[in-house]
Amino acid sequence: MQEYIYVNGSFEKAEEARIHVTDLALLRGYGIFDFFRAIEGKPIFIEDHLDRFENSARLMGLPIPESREKLREIILETIRLNPYPLLGIKMILTGGYSPDGYTPTQPSNLVVIGKPFEFKDPHKGLKLLSMNYKREIPEIKTLSYIVPIRAIPQMKAAQADDLLYHHEGIVSESSRSNIFIVKNNIIVTPKEGALFGITRKHVIQLASQHFEVQERDVSLQEYLEADEVFTTGSTKRIVAISQTDDTVFNQGQIGPVTKQLQNLFLQYEQQS
Amino acid sequence: MQEYIYVNGSFEKAEEARIHVTDLALLRGYGIFDFFRAIEGKPIFIEDHLDRFENSARLMGLPIPESREKLREIILETIRLNPYPLLGIKMILTGGYSPDGYTPTQPSNLVVIGKPFEFKDPHKGLKLLSMNYKREIPEIKTLSYIVPIRAIPQMKAAQADDLLYHHEGIVSESSRSNIFIVKNNIIVTPKEGALFGITRKHVIQLASQHFEVQERDVSLQEYLEADEVFTTGSTKRIVAISQTDDTVFNQGQIGPVTKQLQNLFLQYEQQS
Repeated sequence: MQEYIYVNGSFEKAEEARIHVTDLALLRGYGIFDFFRAIEGKPIFIEDHLDRFENSARLMGLPIPESREKLREIILETIRLNPYPLLGIKMILTGGYSPDGYTPTQPSNLVVIGKPFEFKDPHKGLKLLSMNYKREIPEIKTLSYIVPIRAIPQMKAAQADDLLYHHEGIVSESSRSNIFIVKNNIIVTPKEGALFGITRKHVIQLASQHFEVQERDVSLQEYLEADEVFTTGSTKRIVAISQTDDTVFNQGQIGPVTKQLQNLFLQYEQQS
Repeated sequence: MQEYIYVNGSFEKAEEARIHVTDLALLRGYGIFDFFRAIEGKPIFIEDHLDRFENSARLMGLPIPESREKLREIILETIRLNPYPLLGIKMILTGGYSPDGYTPTQPSNLVVIGKPFEFKDPHKGLKLLSMNYKREIPEIKTLSYIVPIRAIPQMKAAQADDLLYHHEGIVSESSRSNIFIVKNNIIVTPKEGALFGITRKHVIQLASQHFEVQERDVSLQEYLEADEVFTTGSTKRIVAISQTDDTVFNQGQIGPVTKQLQNLFLQYEQQS
């Protein structure tokens, strides 16, 4: 199927979607993005994602060249032009074509990519590799993924699926998703040093109707002693963490609280 | 004058030099670069820069798609096609066009840009703004400049020219150049936590013939109490730092050691 990508005002055939080499993401990694899903043509939690995209842009001093209404139109057109049942939509905003190769310029460059995606298997737990690391600006969804991408060979050698970031004894997040632990039926998720995901927000909302949920610091030790651990993200929804380094959670099986939340979340998302 | 840029195997008219939007620098800021000068057609310290470029690539797991000899040819062709008396040459290597938007793929993307540049005025001292920050992977010349670029408005408000990074009381570097202090005619430059520049290396070599030079940790306090401070880099050579935050060095005048090294370095570079 011919796919289409939006670049600065127009849709182009995906294979022809290019940006000039003076783009500040290419020169200096300067930009932000957001990512969300459209299921059977319906974008999920779109207003949340647009809120975050606008917030990231503001915090990075990058004016979005289009209005919120126009962004919605671009997203709907991306969905129309790439009619996959499961479409992942990535919006990227960079510092523009910088004449001096350093200073952001206007207009910023806006790229919107729609590509089919697959959900992580909800019946399979993930293995994480712990890493002493805290993202530079954790509260903003920047393009900065140098450290985790550089760790891919290390992850593969450990047969891990992803990373668990901790710093000064406190757990923050995984490389592209949030972390929750369950202990004695209480659900706890880190409160600082992470990018707080849209799925995380909705899971907290939903879980609070059934469990006690705490947002606070989680030490690495508390994490490793949890009954269950799970991670949340747009392409994951809720997925169990069955192991981190040498520690296996719930005998490697998906725990009862995680399973219950997975089921609840599927209904919740459909009603959103 | 028509300028030309090298992109993955061929030279293109500068305004037409584009990369596809699935490049991993655009998606994830994943890449490295190097930058050096050609003066009247002669590249300065080219083998040093190629050494560092190859080293950065290796440390980031990015295979360079061309041999060292071919890289030299591309550089010479960049100089021939862009015959400015002062040409800045930037070589960028990214994680390639990544199908999953995360994992580096092969071949890496190689871009070489030649653009005219101007030296910083050697008779004018710079003002720095101190910032508590240490780069994530300081020893590699990555594309990661989100923190200093985001601080540009803050720098402008303080009428500063650049940043001074310090972390846990220790000075490391400026945003794109190295730092030296002078105290009682002894020259000291940080030994850890910085990208060690080619100009820095040659300045140490040269200065050692005339002064005692120490490579070791420099505390922020020692920095602020220095007789003279200067910075080194490819487009700066040696430039005085006349002020950092509220501290003025040598009454705002370029100090005698800095001035002597500036003169010595001009001769040294010509003989290189």
